[in-house]
Amino acid sequence: MNSKQSNAEVAKGLHELFVDGLKDIYWAEQALTVALPKMIEKATSEDLKNALTMHLEETENHVTRLENVFEAIGEEPETKKCEAMAGLIKESEEIMRSTQSGVVRDAGIIAASQKVEHYEIATYGTLRTFAEVLGEDEAMELLQQSLDEEKSADEKLTEIAVSHINSEAAELD
Amino acid sequence: MNSKQSNAEVAKGLHELFVDGLKDIYWAEQALTVALPKMIEKATSEDLKNALTMHLEETENHVTRLENVFEAIGEEPETKKCEAMAGLIKESEEIMRSTQSGVVRDAGIIAASQKVEHYEIATYGTLRTFAEVLGEDEAMELLQQSLDEEKSADEKLTEIAVSHINSEAAELD
Repeated sequence: MNSKQSNAEVAKGLHELFVDGLKDIYWAEQALTVALPKMIEKATSEDLKNALTMHLEETENHVTRLENVFEAIGEEPETKKCEAMAGLIKESEEIMRSTQSGVVRDAGIIAASQKVEHYEIATYGTLRTFAEVLGEDEAMELLQQSLDEEKSADEKLTEIAVSHINSEAAELD
Repeated sequence: MNSKQSNAEVAKGLHELFVDGLKDIYWAEQALTVALPKMIEKATSEDLKNALTMHLEETENHVTRLENVFEAIGEEPETKKCEAMAGLIKESEEIMRSTQSGVVRDAGIIAASQKVEHYEIATYGTLRTFAEVLGEDEAMELLQQSLDEEKSADEKLTEIAVSHINSEAAELD
């Protein structure tokens, strides 16, 4: 596999594409451990604060789990700036800046968080499948665990939005 | 509703958050009509080229449909740069630059496209729900149509990846 890495910039194989994807999400998850506390601080609904706090813990575990994935495939954990996640975090900050504290901002925080969750669902979905076809079974199982947690986090946010936040926000209009 | 817009930068209501989200995805869909042809050109598998070509047509329809949404809610269509989509497109360009033409690049194009689809699924999901609670029924139906098409496009890409591209790419490693 490593024989190809000398010209990796022009001719990546699937293993390299897999490792590149891991570096990208490793950066993204670490960036989220910094971004999520700000969202928790700005949220007002208790159930939203709790869901984000739980997801912060999961995110910290995802960082460690990614280190285990790198180890399982014999690579060093490295980050690579994920432009998409940087953009998603920028959007969430703009929403928090442009709203007052309350249910409308909470609705905005949920919207931004669900974009983040979907980015991670797509990413872990692809990486899990790459691991599978590359025969990296341990990595595949670890990535599947994070994928499942991202999907649950997304569903939880939908529940919170639909149960009361969106309707309370609409009443203010 | 417009009475609140004078201080919209500090106190947005749900209607304003909804309109902001529409501007963001209106920019994103237009950016995709420019990005997708490059991905179609670089893809080699016939089924991937076809799926992306079909999705380009859908994307062009989504732009028009968003103009109908703006009209339905009595707002002018306006774009606002979507930092997340800009990042996603940048990532897809980097993947195409760093791979040679063939199945590995095709796998990378699918990975990048599925991140785009999930961004749109999250966005249309939120906007559809905002439209619902705001009582904007016509907008809600239009957004639901685009949401359904994004979900189908994502499933189609998974099928293509799983049916042959990933395994062919792994065989080259």
